[in-house]
Amino acid sequence: MLTISNRGKQMPASPIRKLVPYAEAAKKKGIKVYHLNIGQPDIETPPMVLDAVRNSTFKVLEYSHSAGNESYRKKLVQYYASVGISVNYNQIIVTTGGSEAIQFGFMACLDHGDEVIIPEPFYANYNGFAVAAGVGVVPITSHINNGFALPPIDEFEKVITPKTKAIVICNPNNPTGYSYSRQEMEQLRDLVLKHNLFLFSDEAYREFVYEDKQVSAMNLEGIEDNVILMDTISKRYSACGGRIGALVTKNQQVLDAVMKFAQARLSPPGFAQIAGEAAVDLPSDYFDTTKAEYKSRRDLIVKRLNAMNGVFCPNPGGAFYAMASLPIDDSDVFCQWLLESFDFNGRTVMLAPATGFYGTPGLGKNEVRLAYVLNLGAIDSAMDCLQEALKVYPGRTNK
Amino acid sequence: MLTISNRGKQMPASPIRKLVPYAEAAKKKGIKVYHLNIGQPDIETPPMVLDAVRNSTFKVLEYSHSAGNESYRKKLVQYYASVGISVNYNQIIVTTGGSEAIQFGFMACLDHGDEVIIPEPFYANYNGFAVAAGVGVVPITSHINNGFALPPIDEFEKVITPKTKAIVICNPNNPTGYSYSRQEMEQLRDLVLKHNLFLFSDEAYREFVYEDKQVSAMNLEGIEDNVILMDTISKRYSACGGRIGALVTKNQQVLDAVMKFAQARLSPPGFAQIAGEAAVDLPSDYFDTTKAEYKSRRDLIVKRLNAMNGVFCPNPGGAFYAMASLPIDDSDVFCQWLLESFDFNGRTVMLAPATGFYGTPGLGKNEVRLAYVLNLGAIDSAMDCLQEALKVYPGRTNK
Repeated sequence: MLTISNRGKQMPASPIRKLVPYAEAAKKKGIKVYHLNIGQPDIETPPMVLDAVRNSTFKVLEYSHSAGNESYRKKLVQYYASVGISVNYNQIIVTTGGSEAIQFGFMACLDHGDEVIIPEPFYANYNGFAVAAGVGVVPITSHINNGFALPPIDEFEKVITPKTKAIVICNPNNPTGYSYSRQEMEQLRDLVLKHNLFLFSDEAYREFVYEDKQVSAMNLEGIEDNVILMDTISKRYSACGGRIGALVTKNQQVLDAVMKFAQARLSPPGFAQIAGEAAVDLPSDYFDTTKAEYKSRRDLIVKRLNAMNGVFCPNPGGAFYAMASLPIDDSDVFCQWLLESFDFNGRTVMLAPATGFYGTPGLGKNEVRLAYVLNLGAIDSAMDCLQEALKVYPGRTNK
Repeated sequence: MLTISNRGKQMPASPIRKLVPYAEAAKKKGIKVYHLNIGQPDIETPPMVLDAVRNSTFKVLEYSHSAGNESYRKKLVQYYASVGISVNYNQIIVTTGGSEAIQFGFMACLDHGDEVIIPEPFYANYNGFAVAAGVGVVPITSHINNGFALPPIDEFEKVITPKTKAIVICNPNNPTGYSYSRQEMEQLRDLVLKHNLFLFSDEAYREFVYEDKQVSAMNLEGIEDNVILMDTISKRYSACGGRIGALVTKNQQVLDAVMKFAQARLSPPGFAQIAGEAAVDLPSDYFDTTKAEYKSRRDLIVKRLNAMNGVFCPNPGGAFYAMASLPIDDSDVFCQWLLESFDFNGRTVMLAPATGFYGTPGLGKNEVRLAYVLNLGAIDSAMDCLQEALKVYPGRTNK
């Protein structure tokens, strides 16, 4: 019988996008839906970034170098220097979004049957890329009560086997917003060194750390060959649709292997490389403004959430996500109910059930992720909706 | 020890791009290099296609739908109808180049350890995507003496095992230029039906068939669920750098699985989707002009090649590639020698050794692929170089 692959069957559906039909139905009923479910910022892409593409004058939309335009990679060296990361342009491979950086990293470093350890809750698509690569994800649970700090190293040690090849972190974290401390990063360094593991570090939200300074895995001494940075311009410049990211590493063997995967797919997107290159020349206060905006949104959403009866939201140190525990029976049911059966003055809110971010079945049932990607007014209205929803939700646990 | 994956080690380096350093060195010496080695057309991207991007007015470069913008997919329905392929927009998933369509198809339909049969010589990157997916490539040799026609079906039957899950064709073919006849396509139909195989059909060069009409796998009756079309705008509109392609199939199970892979990588590139959408509105004579240009290039290159002593080049029916057998000992050595040790009046030519297009070791040693992507004058000069080179090449076999 003609049948799809087991890999195709096992591939997880997007936990965030599965609610989309319910949101569409709500909108058709005339209900205004506040989208706090997805990391698509409302912040305008800087006009000079878009203008660089619009003012381009080339006549043939040619393949670029498989590693990305040399001029862009040289600009990226400048960008990385500005955030304290010292690399040369041959250590940068431009990718189709951060997504492809993850994919290339997994493909080049991990074999079918290997395992990676990821603190959960984690970015759900790591799962998808692991399934594609035939790699097993071993989750280590981080907890909401300490703001999703790095789990004790003992917990990692317990699950390390000969199959373990890497640890994957996202810092600051999607979905928790947690920003790893220098001490935690050094614990990870010692661990990967002890067990000869790769450390995949997704730093898509590097600029959005509100109190401290982000500690890049690229600056951990003694594990230069272990670290693979997975990066993207998507969130940094509100340029998600460009699909431009980068894989950065000092490990020459990894670079050589990744280049072969990069050559097979020919080149990263042309137009958005122009955008990415222009973005490096944004005025130095660009992130100050954006960061201040996200910080005030975070402050508002955290305050509103913690003021609700039975709700707890630790203060996220970075990114633009907050995780909250709610007095509910089942976050999947609740998030669907918000769209299907609830409105407050013709409005409702779309959230991401946290279940999709945990690898351990059963976890996250009373947690949701909120992306504070809307302006303060919209966040306030969305929180009004959530507050009222929790009062009337039939599956509320502490009535 | 920290080590990359076996997959990373096994991943083939691009057979075409490995000569690039020699070409760069030649240029540094002041030698003019005619690039007939790679499918990067010199034809201008239609200005209205580029202008659609340049005149865009959106303010946020947002993620698109994971399957591509609905408006674009609806336009593609119109495009496919114009080439006689009837599909609806839910049967189209927009991909990051044809490359990602191949990747998604392999991932959704093939498991680690499965096998695909591909007539050789074949597009070298099928190998790369197969390695990434853990899939074995079983080549069936087609021969230059009959212009690389489809090998007898018996040859396929001989290598079909329970591991065989699909046949991959490229029609018209890269690297041979061969355009499969209706009879050959029907033989393939009967074969995949008999053995319950998928038929992956790469039709990137659909418009460039010079004498007959391309026979799309999408129009083979009775195997609607078996056929997966892998497509791209790269060659069609000389828009290689946009990285926009499509996977098209009527098999709902495959579409559902591919959508999960598509969601994991979020969305295809934004800017170039605008370009792709505009391209569908090109005047109906657009391909007439382009095709006439390629045809006169083909006629010239084939005539020049066959006029050289000891050279044979069958007349390719489509695409913009020609394969030629040369009186040489080793095409890899020869192509490198052309760049490293030869020039004719300060000029030389870069060709692709055919060895990289064969899965069977040892084949293609006296063959090269020539991409007729340069104008007539450049092709003529490049052929002058080749003609002179063959006279003096130390590894010439029939002196």
